[in-house]
Amino acid sequence: MQVVASPANTSTTGFGFVSMIDNPMTVGPDIGSKLIGRSQGFYGSADQRELAVLVTMNLVFLEGRYNGSTVALMGRNRIAAGIRETAVVGGTGVFRFATGYATARTQRFNQTSGDAVAEYNLYVLHY
Amino acid sequence: MQVVASPANTSTTGFGFVSMIDNPMTVGPDIGSKLIGRSQGFYGSADQRELAVLVTMNLVFLEGRYNGSTVALMGRNRIAAGIRETAVVGGTGVFRFATGYATARTQRFNQTSGDAVAEYNLYVLHY
Amino acid sequence: MQVVASPANTSTTGFGFVSMIDNPMTVGPDIGSKLIGRSQGFYGSADQRELAVLVTMNLVFLEGRYNGSTVALMGRNRIAAGIRETAVVGGTGVFRFATGYATARTQRFNQTSGDAVAEYNLYVLHY
Repeated sequence: MQVVASPANTSTTGFGFVSMIDNPMTVGPDIGSKLIGRSQGFYGSADQRELAVLVTMNLVFLEGRYNGSTVALMGRNRIAAGIRETAVVGGTGVFRFATGYATARTQRFNQTSGDAVAEYNLYVLHY
Repeated sequence: MQVVASPANTSTTGFGFVSMIDNPMTVGPDIGSKLIGRSQGFYGSADQRELAVLVTMNLVFLEGRYNGSTVALMGRNRIAAGIRETAVVGGTGVFRFATGYATARTQRFNQTSGDAVAEYNLYVLHY
Repeated sequence: MQVVASPANTSTTGFGFVSMIDNPMTVGPDIGSKLIGRSQGFYGSADQRELAVLVTMNLVFLEGRYNGSTVALMGRNRIAAGIRETAVVGGTGVFRFATGYATARTQRFNQTSGDAVAEYNLYVLHY
């Protein structure tokens, strides 16, 4: 994660905090698990009362039959929620004309390092 | 609204100005009207000639049968226009697979405080 | 292009670099070619290993039968790639309910000025 801007304000939710992300996407929860792509995008803190971000993110596949294809996600990620759902708003390559949704669930979170592992499941209708 | 960045340049349109928003969404134009959710997202000034922003925004419903569902909007908001139309690009919960459009109209704008009230109408096809 | 933020880090890919764009859209590759609109949006560097940006962008038509209509694009732009594909995630006016994809190809790039010309082809299903 790269912090882009971290506005000074009195919110306890980091309202206005903006970062870009580029995370490995693996088959399983272990970092040694097979790498199949990367999730790359924008997180912007968009809530004054709880920790919730606007997400615009591409799932970039770099392996197998989806190699070179992407799925575009947009939605709200309320970090502390058990299951977070975002919309599939489009895609490229194999995923042209994609529509659907993704659910995410935090598998592990290391409070010291800040590292997190999340499980994503996608339901995608596409061409 | 939380200013994220306000680049110095010679444009009169705030070109490059970026902010995150988190506004109450009510049934009617009065702030005392029933609160049904929040509109949360990103505004980025994207025009060198007139005041027009790129908007990526979630309508977050927190009440009634849409409670917990979201609608994702993306588009261009030319602030001074009578009616602004943005695209519905997706949704979650009740609004999975959403597609459609939203029209916005400024109801009131207080030049001193900067507070504004806008009426939104949505036309959404969803699952 | 207006730089919004340019985070200091050790990446060689400008990871976290954010800018807003507002470029003329013409029928042909020459700047003197007929102006039909503008491409306005957000570029955020979202890759730590190669130059690739998250794009959220509106194609704003200002001429002819599409005058006042917009097409919303979202995707990943790997700048050095021959052909880059982004998703059409929605639209307004004539392009309500739009879905599809856009391909972009750099026609010219002036390393001294940084000016670039890219050819866009769109495949759009809409109402």
